[in-house]
Amino acid sequence: MRVEHELGHDEALHTAWDNSLPPVLRVDSGEVVRFDCLNDSGPRITPETTAADLPETEFVGHHLTGPVAVDGAEPGDVLQVDVLDVTHDDWGYTLVRSGERGLGLLPEEFPDPFLYHWDLSGDVAPFEAGIEVPLAPFPGVVGVAPAESGEHATGPPRNVGGNLDVKHLTAGATVYLPVEVAGALFSVGDGHAAQGDGEVCVSAIETPTEITARLTVRPDLDVPAPQFETAGPFTPSGRDEPAYATTGVRDDLMDAASDAVSAMLDRLVARYDLSRPEAYVLCSVAADLKINEVVDAPNWVVSAYLADSLFPDE
Amino acid sequence: MRVEHELGHDEALHTAWDNSLPPVLRVDSGEVVRFDCLNDSGPRITPETTAADLPETEFVGHHLTGPVAVDGAEPGDVLQVDVLDVTHDDWGYTLVRSGERGLGLLPEEFPDPFLYHWDLSGDVAPFEAGIEVPLAPFPGVVGVAPAESGEHATGPPRNVGGNLDVKHLTAGATVYLPVEVAGALFSVGDGHAAQGDGEVCVSAIETPTEITARLTVRPDLDVPAPQFETAGPFTPSGRDEPAYATTGVRDDLMDAASDAVSAMLDRLVARYDLSRPEAYVLCSVAADLKINEVVDAPNWVVSAYLADSLFPDE
Repeated sequence: MRVEHELGHDEALHTAWDNSLPPVLRVDSGEVVRFDCLNDSGPRITPETTAADLPETEFVGHHLTGPVAVDGAEPGDVLQVDVLDVTHDDWGYTLVRSGERGLGLLPEEFPDPFLYHWDLSGDVAPFEAGIEVPLAPFPGVVGVAPAESGEHATGPPRNVGGNLDVKHLTAGATVYLPVEVAGALFSVGDGHAAQGDGEVCVSAIETPTEITARLTVRPDLDVPAPQFETAGPFTPSGRDEPAYATTGVRDDLMDAASDAVSAMLDRLVARYDLSRPEAYVLCSVAADLKINEVVDAPNWVVSAYLADSLFPDE
Repeated sequence: MRVEHELGHDEALHTAWDNSLPPVLRVDSGEVVRFDCLNDSGPRITPETTAADLPETEFVGHHLTGPVAVDGAEPGDVLQVDVLDVTHDDWGYTLVRSGERGLGLLPEEFPDPFLYHWDLSGDVAPFEAGIEVPLAPFPGVVGVAPAESGEHATGPPRNVGGNLDVKHLTAGATVYLPVEVAGALFSVGDGHAAQGDGEVCVSAIETPTEITARLTVRPDLDVPAPQFETAGPFTPSGRDEPAYATTGVRDDLMDAASDAVSAMLDRLVARYDLSRPEAYVLCSVAADLKINEVVDAPNWVVSAYLADSLFPDE
């Protein structure tokens, strides 16, 4: 793989979307860039951070690497981002932030913050009770600058991408982003070593990453919001394997998702002697939320799936 | 596999949930029953039904086989249903009902009914434009009688199960249902030869089925809503494989799901020369809705995934 450009986070750090930020790099369409990315919170959370430090770790925006201007990109075009390689640090963390700010799928149930550090030096990340989480690293944030002027928080994803938190954007995936400004102004970051569909506690296994991507202008395409091609990971082993799922059956999809995750927390706490915050962390990094049906009015079904292979043999 | 009981649909047909219906069969806990099930609409839709007949096909309730009383089951217990075998007819249909009743994920866009017949005699179901849909049959309705007296429509799923439309309840899966009445009063039906997560047009590949299941009372378990163990199918081939996904990025999960499916319809119509109703049918039977993130306030991401392997090589 030929890498035409390398971009360090020191020279290219930004923590808000803003199309007036000058590009730190200009590339030709089709060139490959290696992005050195801090973890989402940058130096505010390190391997030494403890629960006592959490009041000082308030989130100020994802620590992104960019923006990169791609020559020839114009509003109305599509930026094709081929994710070629994602490597991660040997440390990561998951943080349940205080519920008072309304963060996470179950904020009322988790009023207190909780921090979990992960050892990412192996093929899987060891958790409590003999549970092992498979690693499938990807960038949580992949986006281009919005047309609207001014600073925009990095937290919410938008039609130009950003904090999509799509777990399938691993190496080998391709993302298509709608371009809204000249040069596209691409940035990336928020590395996740593993995440479940839903990311229910608001963080994945957050870790510093190096992300290598090819950036190609596609004037021939037109997408209203991000689209992507992926090869998985759909299961930890890469093939159909047993999973246990809890359902939520409700007349609101958000309530259904909450019920499904609550039921999975009950199960994890009862069977594996996890604390409830630990169970919430495990769901955020490894449980997948699927919409089973969204048409049997007035009740919809959302389920949370956890693969059996994460757990020790019983 | 030893089958202790066989239940034909003629002797056991019902089209509403009602705990005053007398059981048509009483079994011991742990016994296996083979259920002969009509398609969801029963004789109202057959291989001969045409679009001209649709005004007479209004849905009157799923044509279910049951109820079966399981000896010893009491309110507060769990009924374990091991799905041992599911066989299907060589014909199936998918119906987009008229949008005026608000059915389906995109009712405004599909005001007119549309009926599609499938040939299910092979390993895959041929569709238009060289597209082939893999078959993974399962019962759309798996449930026990609710405690509340009176007749209850079969359309909405409830905490006692019913029209769950969980595509992963194929042979080899196990479902756990909360028991609310003595004997549990189990019924099953609404066979689907294939369905995507979401079932967006309101019907799957609807087909008559034979469903063989072991019914076991589990007084030792406690579930608030259905839970299940599955071995897939998570992808058509059973292993990680390329899929294309469209996203919806919105502050409401239902809107996000609608956007994702609309974008997939645009893509299918443009690339494969499908009519828009045909594209809607394909999404209903083969596209999977996943909640990518439900925590990056105020915007959530839902994506619709379609495996590349369904499509002819380009």
